[in-house]
Amino acid sequence: MVGKANFETVDALLPTTLNEGELLVKALYISVDPYMRGRMNDTKSYIEPYEVGKPLTGGVVAEVVESKHADFLPGDFVLGNLTWTEKQVVDGAAVTKLMKDLVPLSYYLGILGMPGLTAYFGLLHIGEPKAGETVVISGAAGAVGTVVGQIAKIKGCRVVGIAGSDGKNAYLKNKFHFDETINYQNTTDLSAAIAKACPNGVDIYYDNVGGAISDAVLQHINKFARIIICGQISMYNSTETPVGPRPQVALVKNSAFMKGFVVSDFSKHFPEGVSQLTAWLTAGKLQYQETVVKGFDALPDAFIGLFRGDNTGKLLVEV
Amino acid sequence: MVGKANFETVDALLPTTLNEGELLVKALYISVDPYMRGRMNDTKSYIEPYEVGKPLTGGVVAEVVESKHADFLPGDFVLGNLTWTEKQVVDGAAVTKLMKDLVPLSYYLGILGMPGLTAYFGLLHIGEPKAGETVVISGAAGAVGTVVGQIAKIKGCRVVGIAGSDGKNAYLKNKFHFDETINYQNTTDLSAAIAKACPNGVDIYYDNVGGAISDAVLQHINKFARIIICGQISMYNSTETPVGPRPQVALVKNSAFMKGFVVSDFSKHFPEGVSQLTAWLTAGKLQYQETVVKGFDALPDAFIGLFRGDNTGKLLVEV
Repeated sequence: MVGKANFETVDALLPTTLNEGELLVKALYISVDPYMRGRMNDTKSYIEPYEVGKPLTGGVVAEVVESKHADFLPGDFVLGNLTWTEKQVVDGAAVTKLMKDLVPLSYYLGILGMPGLTAYFGLLHIGEPKAGETVVISGAAGAVGTVVGQIAKIKGCRVVGIAGSDGKNAYLKNKFHFDETINYQNTTDLSAAIAKACPNGVDIYYDNVGGAISDAVLQHINKFARIIICGQISMYNSTETPVGPRPQVALVKNSAFMKGFVVSDFSKHFPEGVSQLTAWLTAGKLQYQETVVKGFDALPDAFIGLFRGDNTGKLLVEV
Repeated sequence: MVGKANFETVDALLPTTLNEGELLVKALYISVDPYMRGRMNDTKSYIEPYEVGKPLTGGVVAEVVESKHADFLPGDFVLGNLTWTEKQVVDGAAVTKLMKDLVPLSYYLGILGMPGLTAYFGLLHIGEPKAGETVVISGAAGAVGTVVGQIAKIKGCRVVGIAGSDGKNAYLKNKFHFDETINYQNTTDLSAAIAKACPNGVDIYYDNVGGAISDAVLQHINKFARIIICGQISMYNSTETPVGPRPQVALVKNSAFMKGFVVSDFSKHFPEGVSQLTAWLTAGKLQYQETVVKGFDALPDAFIGLFRGDNTGKLLVEV
């Protein structure tokens, strides 16, 4: 488990002059995301591990303070994979300028950013939901899960969310119109709860969590089920390979698949995703919720809170 | 583990007359296949379980003895999912007439039947191999594995077979031109052996076996790897759900998938498969090997032998 002792706040000097093409930017919103935990392990993965003693990097919305790049002026807002620092110098080519009036700036770290696109491509390009199918989502109240559920509803599916508190589940039903929810924290027989919530079985399982929740869902998959492995937050703090019931026999019995992915697999389709999500947002078909924690110093605790299940919706820090 | 005590040979009377459309047929070749073990469990699967006290059914090549169906004459050869009986009455609509001169009749239980089509569709339609990729096959010396390896070679892949004896592995290299083989029975570090045999990692894993062999292969999969779950022969005699390292984190780290299937998922493409396999066979691009056991009474032991790993290539019984 990651803890506050793994974090350190350090004062450092900024360069005194900008090179041609560079920007000095000031962080406005910094994203904390579960995938970052994986980058804290020294193992091969889809993304390079963080280095001890260097700042973390992740999604940041920032304001341009000084510019030596022709495309940017002071006061412009940008999105990039930037360091966890209050101010930093960045290459103008490494950031994207944001429209400031279309949606709140923080949305570019959430529903129109990595989590929203992760929901969109995982569900639609891998899961290929059909009207009438049953979609089960673990980690349903998170930044990805809430969007997955809403897109599945738009596609005419029955949507069942699994989350860790009655409050989160009420929020899934009331705000996002999930058909059924399961609180895994106070359910003694998860398999029976899934059977009850999914009388026609499970066609798509969008998995953000893994572990015992996935084991229970797998007992109820239908022929040709699709299991989308988006995250495995219950496993990220494990130091040994977690052990559990083998899924292969269930997959072969049901001609089902289990597919992992990372949103960058779909980077050439990002414009399609952003455009469709924006259209649904502005048409009122998608609801969006953020949990905004204030202050740069709140970053470590906000990040750690992801693994305690603190957040509803997208968690981010306003600097 | 299935044993001889689970089998019984019984004398029974045939109907004395045929109804319109029926045939009296005499079994010539009876197929024994790993999937049949699954049908001996009283659980939901892709196919109905066998009933205690009734004959098993499976792939049978038979000769027509009497016919009341306009399409068949005595002396014709047919293929069908028939009972394990020396003679039986069948509906003419439930069997397929076979050409007797193109290939040996027994091939329709193997390379041109269920195992050959299983190899073909699993590898090509699910795995989508590309030239230069590395394909690992477990249960490589079996009826499916030998065909998978040869098709992968035709597609320009590096092919690594895992089997349970040096004799089988020599046969994979010499007869089927596998690039590398691993004898899992005398390898103490399977993971290291796979790393050595697959210097560029594993792009496709065609899994007939499951268990510890699959755990080791999974440690070496590449980005976008495809794991084709064809069978799990190491698991079929288990009475409890087998436990092992969870594969999900490896799948998400590598954007990889694991897909189960059964050959009938591809039934609308069977003509394509039979036609391509026949073309490769007659062009000498595919080698084929059968193990033929003689005598109807040898059926139980031949079937049990599948789980002892007795056979090289397709195992069948000549009545």
